[in-house]
Amino acid sequence: MSIFSEVGPIKYEGPESTNDFAYKVYDKDRVVLGKKLSEWLRLTVCYWHSFAAGGMDMFGGDTWPRPWKDGPNTQEAANAKTDAAFDFFQRMGTPYFAFHDVDAMAQADTLEEHDRALKTIEARIAKRMSETGVKLLWGTANLFGHPRFMAGASTNPNPEVFAYAAAQVKMIMETTHRLGGENYVLWGGREGYDTLLNTDLKAELAHFGRFLNMVVEHKHKIGFKGTILIEPKPFEPTKHQYDRDVSTVFGFLQKNGLEKEVKVNIEVNHATLANLDFEHEVATAYALGIMGSLDINRGDPRSGWDTDQFPNNAQDLSVAFLSILENGGLGTGGCNFDAKLRRQSIDINDLYIAHITGIDTLARAVLSAESVIKQKKLATLKAARYAGWETPFGKEIAEGKYTLAQLADVAVKKGLDPEPVSGKQELFESIVAQNQKV
Amino acid sequence: MSIFSEVGPIKYEGPESTNDFAYKVYDKDRVVLGKKLSEWLRLTVCYWHSFAAGGMDMFGGDTWPRPWKDGPNTQEAANAKTDAAFDFFQRMGTPYFAFHDVDAMAQADTLEEHDRALKTIEARIAKRMSETGVKLLWGTANLFGHPRFMAGASTNPNPEVFAYAAAQVKMIMETTHRLGGENYVLWGGREGYDTLLNTDLKAELAHFGRFLNMVVEHKHKIGFKGTILIEPKPFEPTKHQYDRDVSTVFGFLQKNGLEKEVKVNIEVNHATLANLDFEHEVATAYALGIMGSLDINRGDPRSGWDTDQFPNNAQDLSVAFLSILENGGLGTGGCNFDAKLRRQSIDINDLYIAHITGIDTLARAVLSAESVIKQKKLATLKAARYAGWETPFGKEIAEGKYTLAQLADVAVKKGLDPEPVSGKQELFESIVAQNQKV
Amino acid sequence: MSIFSEVGPIKYEGPESTNDFAYKVYDKDRVVLGKKLSEWLRLTVCYWHSFAAGGMDMFGGDTWPRPWKDGPNTQEAANAKTDAAFDFFQRMGTPYFAFHDVDAMAQADTLEEHDRALKTIEARIAKRMSETGVKLLWGTANLFGHPRFMAGASTNPNPEVFAYAAAQVKMIMETTHRLGGENYVLWGGREGYDTLLNTDLKAELAHFGRFLNMVVEHKHKIGFKGTILIEPKPFEPTKHQYDRDVSTVFGFLQKNGLEKEVKVNIEVNHATLANLDFEHEVATAYALGIMGSLDINRGDPRSGWDTDQFPNNAQDLSVAFLSILENGGLGTGGCNFDAKLRRQSIDINDLYIAHITGIDTLARAVLSAESVIKQKKLATLKAARYAGWETPFGKEIAEGKYTLAQLADVAVKKGLDPEPVSGKQELFESIVAQNQKV
Amino acid sequence: MSIFSEVGPIKYEGPESTNDFAYKVYDKDRVVLGKKLSEWLRLTVCYWHSFAAGGMDMFGGDTWPRPWKDGPNTQEAANAKTDAAFDFFQRMGTPYFAFHDVDAMAQADTLEEHDRALKTIEARIAKRMSETGVKLLWGTANLFGHPRFMAGASTNPNPEVFAYAAAQVKMIMETTHRLGGENYVLWGGREGYDTLLNTDLKAELAHFGRFLNMVVEHKHKIGFKGTILIEPKPFEPTKHQYDRDVSTVFGFLQKNGLEKEVKVNIEVNHATLANLDFEHEVATAYALGIMGSLDINRGDPRSGWDTDQFPNNAQDLSVAFLSILENGGLGTGGCNFDAKLRRQSIDINDLYIAHITGIDTLARAVLSAESVIKQKKLATLKAARYAGWETPFGKEIAEGKYTLAQLADVAVKKGLDPEPVSGKQELFESIVAQNQKV
Repeated sequence: MSIFSEVGPIKYEGPESTNDFAYKVYDKDRVVLGKKLSEWLRLTVCYWHSFAAGGMDMFGGDTWPRPWKDGPNTQEAANAKTDAAFDFFQRMGTPYFAFHDVDAMAQADTLEEHDRALKTIEARIAKRMSETGVKLLWGTANLFGHPRFMAGASTNPNPEVFAYAAAQVKMIMETTHRLGGENYVLWGGREGYDTLLNTDLKAELAHFGRFLNMVVEHKHKIGFKGTILIEPKPFEPTKHQYDRDVSTVFGFLQKNGLEKEVKVNIEVNHATLANLDFEHEVATAYALGIMGSLDINRGDPRSGWDTDQFPNNAQDLSVAFLSILENGGLGTGGCNFDAKLRRQSIDINDLYIAHITGIDTLARAVLSAESVIKQKKLATLKAARYAGWETPFGKEIAEGKYTLAQLADVAVKKGLDPEPVSGKQELFESIVAQNQKV
Repeated sequence: MSIFSEVGPIKYEGPESTNDFAYKVYDKDRVVLGKKLSEWLRLTVCYWHSFAAGGMDMFGGDTWPRPWKDGPNTQEAANAKTDAAFDFFQRMGTPYFAFHDVDAMAQADTLEEHDRALKTIEARIAKRMSETGVKLLWGTANLFGHPRFMAGASTNPNPEVFAYAAAQVKMIMETTHRLGGENYVLWGGREGYDTLLNTDLKAELAHFGRFLNMVVEHKHKIGFKGTILIEPKPFEPTKHQYDRDVSTVFGFLQKNGLEKEVKVNIEVNHATLANLDFEHEVATAYALGIMGSLDINRGDPRSGWDTDQFPNNAQDLSVAFLSILENGGLGTGGCNFDAKLRRQSIDINDLYIAHITGIDTLARAVLSAESVIKQKKLATLKAARYAGWETPFGKEIAEGKYTLAQLADVAVKKGLDPEPVSGKQELFESIVAQNQKV
Repeated sequence: MSIFSEVGPIKYEGPESTNDFAYKVYDKDRVVLGKKLSEWLRLTVCYWHSFAAGGMDMFGGDTWPRPWKDGPNTQEAANAKTDAAFDFFQRMGTPYFAFHDVDAMAQADTLEEHDRALKTIEARIAKRMSETGVKLLWGTANLFGHPRFMAGASTNPNPEVFAYAAAQVKMIMETTHRLGGENYVLWGGREGYDTLLNTDLKAELAHFGRFLNMVVEHKHKIGFKGTILIEPKPFEPTKHQYDRDVSTVFGFLQKNGLEKEVKVNIEVNHATLANLDFEHEVATAYALGIMGSLDINRGDPRSGWDTDQFPNNAQDLSVAFLSILENGGLGTGGCNFDAKLRRQSIDINDLYIAHITGIDTLARAVLSAESVIKQKKLATLKAARYAGWETPFGKEIAEGKYTLAQLADVAVKKGLDPEPVSGKQELFESIVAQNQKV
Repeated sequence: MSIFSEVGPIKYEGPESTNDFAYKVYDKDRVVLGKKLSEWLRLTVCYWHSFAAGGMDMFGGDTWPRPWKDGPNTQEAANAKTDAAFDFFQRMGTPYFAFHDVDAMAQADTLEEHDRALKTIEARIAKRMSETGVKLLWGTANLFGHPRFMAGASTNPNPEVFAYAAAQVKMIMETTHRLGGENYVLWGGREGYDTLLNTDLKAELAHFGRFLNMVVEHKHKIGFKGTILIEPKPFEPTKHQYDRDVSTVFGFLQKNGLEKEVKVNIEVNHATLANLDFEHEVATAYALGIMGSLDINRGDPRSGWDTDQFPNNAQDLSVAFLSILENGGLGTGGCNFDAKLRRQSIDINDLYIAHITGIDTLARAVLSAESVIKQKKLATLKAARYAGWETPFGKEIAEGKYTLAQLADVAVKKGLDPEPVSGKQELFESIVAQNQKV
């Protein structure tokens, strides 16, 4: 019995259903371009927003009823939270979950207690996983909540904080490994600065690089086969987060020799905060070979902070899913709902509605991408646009057969005067619009 | 005789001067930390905004009186423009200028004509340089104005445009070399996309990388000793420019093996458009070893486009100049006013006022940075903040003496519980505020 | 024969059509809640973006083939433009058009010539209107393109510019009246400021108010029955436009006693630039009783300027159309495509594709709003949320039966302690998402 | 003895002082244009950020040592907080404070207890005020922190919440009155919406208007002579706050017949969030006759939320203070530091540094405005710009002597063709830059 047990399990009932507690689009076994919808999406529910948080904002306290938050975070409370979480996962039919160490475990005041409390909850999680078949997409360490991390973890001016963070990461990495986690995530947390004036940027970046190398070395040492992921975000909580966006992370990985070892966990709203289209971040990650996983949510287009709303406009996600389907999917990654209820959404059932709508939205995005791909029109138009690069002249340039001087010489001699050709942006866009699926 | 010849030369008259046509702060020979103000700033006036443009915006045509723009861009008009420009440079006392090929030359319709017209104006520029002592900070190619470049230059879907761009770059690089230019700049122009849907991101980035390698190879071939610079900008004219910001450019350079060959030309307003502090971009460039040169201007904090206004708030530039002075200056770079008059500023003398105020603003920023450095308080506070990394424990971590497991072990065994220490942001900021100089 | 005459007329072919030149959703005679789709939308094609402009941006010149722009704007060129425009209107099947005086007329250098040239083209437009049945949604004056307006029209520091603007407005208002225009629009143009420092804000607002009163008086004098509309925009071309948004305009109208005389023409992208949801502006205008007409387009969510793209995401417009349908429609207003092709869209047929997709997008938005309304779920949930205000206690408060002291007294005596109730935001949003129509 | 008692009182020591705990610019008795600096600024320290808050953000808990927050908010804790606050006010030498009811009082669970607890702390505050001479700039009610207000106070869907808010406001208004408060503030809190879909915009605005009328009526009834102030903010905590900006508030006041009764409390960072210059909001409030008071702080130019940082760039405030000095000052208003320490600023002395720097920044802004005014150059240039409106023709237009038709007739007959005149923006801006004072 949990606060979730009045509802579910949630079933697919099709587009005509008027049942708030049913999928209208997400038919998990529906085959799309050779793979099931559930395999494309690898749906994941997160602990933090849905079970550990309470609805507070900067102007007022918690509003959501979460019985395990009524008193101190004892082992009993932690157990109740995990039981409720797995009850919800199972009723939703979502195959994966994700968590930070401190989301799930009881309060611990020293590293020794931390280790103990983490292992205690690990055992209970393992039991629930085995009972329910729900799997772990990724684990991560919370290196930002406690005041000790107020100036960063691996980028802290105090090396003892670096060491503390190392201990915490080691523990949760190993828990993740034992639970069969498919990835391990490092979100920047407070790795960044609030004012450049008190900050040694170069040293902090070096420490950050060192830390990441230690994590990768430890992964190999313990035989963890999952993917190490960095999650870009431009700011918040700090004024400037080092892991700003996919391109910045790629530069950082190369600088530290890690571009083959580490991938990115792209969050929709983090892309928005960086003033980048989500689809740009996804396409860039594929182009650079570092596509890892997705944190699914959306921001309010008027607000400048991380609102972490559930998505509901499928067309906004269509272009990203076009990339994902064309590139064969997310690999070890998945679609994690890093999304939270609005503070006023205090009915426990709001959590169902939010996830169901979010999942149907993702399903719509996949189906629209499938439709675009099957129609072939967009791919044909695009290929035509670049046809010149398939000619011998184009290929020679791309392959480095010309120096600047040689190519200039050709251009002058041939009297090149290339005619502009329509980019047909409105036509490309109309293809996506017309392939939206209900 | 030019439209500028009623005024100047502009002299330093000190802070009490009420003469609009005098420097109140910029005393070019004043020594700051061992170097003259003029050597720190290497002031540069640009051709495009000040001589080639006419004040038009998206809602109305030209308003500024520029006699050489009254008719077609003949050789006579081009000559008049160059003569006026050098008249202005000399009256301002600014030691450098910068230009795009088409800013200065007469209209050309083929690459052959382009070569001829460029060389014709090059001869006149060389003569004016020799007469006046004004030097060339950098040259660049305009690869965005003509419709042939509407879909990019080296990232164009048509390889013939790539070839055309190669020819144009070769010509102006060689002109820059012959004129003794100290840098050669590549600004993204339209290297980017307007919709991801019609764009092969990976191919375009590869072509862009190929182009840049050709440029570097040509530099060495012709013996050009200047620095090759890329100028980051996040968007405008395209919806997404590939050279988004310093970190993105650094990732791109590493990917193409060019991080030792190419540096960045950082523009204040481009940083703002990327939602990055100018001082962050400067500090990052120094940290990554790719600091090149500066384009000086400011954006309107309310507008979302490249307003290119002249700067007038010295404190806004203070933190960046703190980095610059601490790092020994701009090398082959300088401070180029990539700034334009407002459309309503139609008096020819507005051009003087704007540059004089901009130059005094830069001078104020240098003097305030000098004052902060001499006071030593900020550096002392900062060193204290990072003192832990100078202990044996800190050094060992930084030098890679610990694995994650070893460091975790130390942390657990020592029962580390690091105490938070104040970041003193308000104090750091007050130091900068109190060291502003009039 | 015009450049548009190879295509059309555009017909409705239904969602399965693969014809780029057909409506897939917009079935103009389809009845929605008692009115035809065409009556809800009152589709309007504008002169300026589609026929008068050429594709230039701040970084390069025109790219679109518009034969009448190849030479000077003579009467012949103006005639050719009008003939082509009406050819396009007719082929599109769009019932309305809109224009600025100078969009349509030949070049005029004095007010006398202006009057003559405007009347000349008016005659031709009248003829084409009568031949084709296409009607005029609104006319307006271009008071921003010519350098004389660089510092505003009615808010210009020079009263002669105010007088010039008065003359121009009088002429085009009368033309609009004679052509049976259903509205007359005043878009701010350059009514605003670039720096507060050189601006007498209070005086300029007073002059603006005076001008608007003169326009309203003239409307009544000539017997024009259409609606006078102000079009809000927060900035661009000026740094601050006085007609910032709907609420600001409402305050201005009240201040000048015009809130019963003038309504608003709301543009999607202008709302976005003001950082307001389009649906907020629409709902606010209805709440304040000043809903007039719509300029349909969209901005790029990453850019900070007026990109004026054609819309293609119907869900983004759904909530606004929910307001519109619930409020009975747009009155004398319509849906004017104040939208332009991308600079690279140089095929003449791109203009068809863009408008067709835009129209189908609007049709989808109407159909989804119809579906939400017919389902009644959203209205029922909303009514339940406010049910307290329908109780006697709620009504008495709303009707002013209590003073603060009396109500405080009731609250204390009753020991009021109201329980929070879920706002169900995710459920409300899911209703809109699930009612999207293909 | 309080946590503040090691330092102070803070004295003016002049620009050469190196004492962190001294004013370098703020010489309170210095006479500026006939009034003391202290009279222009009416400096105010707020309870909430400096004494009631603890440094938490959305990603981590409190960090600042505030002993009265270590346990529950008992009367003893409330007393300790008030004693510490007045100790700080006195040591700072700031003449005013401001507070919300719940900032100061002990926890209360019913309205009766609320009344009692508020009166208890009121007595202690009154005693401290009398001992120290510190005065109350304004009081206000916290109508947003408790979950009962999660959907707004006067705009709540539940009229019982409206009644609860009425009781709370009545109590604190009367406390404010008895304490000799010079103003009473209504900050929007959660008066707005999170989604338009569940919101009856028109009804909520009507309820809001009714509430405000009740407040004004109560003011007159109890004989409160202070000013009623509304504080504009565009969003946060809600997605859309009704009191968006000065112009929106003015429209709302007119609609409810309150434009003579209510003024605005303008916050720097709220203006920024609304994408308006602070100086625009100030100038607009003066132009509309509703200038009330100021909340002084600044936002981070990169972040999109209310960072409430202490100001330190005087030039950024110069133009607003030019308006303030030209308009004779703030009346019953003052400069309230609605500013908070950064989360890492955990030294108790950081609170001194932050306020001292903020106060010196304001003093600099006043001195620079004085300098601009005394120099007369800016005013002369501005008068020249508008000289046309002082001619008979200009005056007749402004006074309404012409109809549109008459004025058009004059313009045509005279063949008006006004010449553009330079707006001299760079010159105007340079005057402000050159008059910055250290």
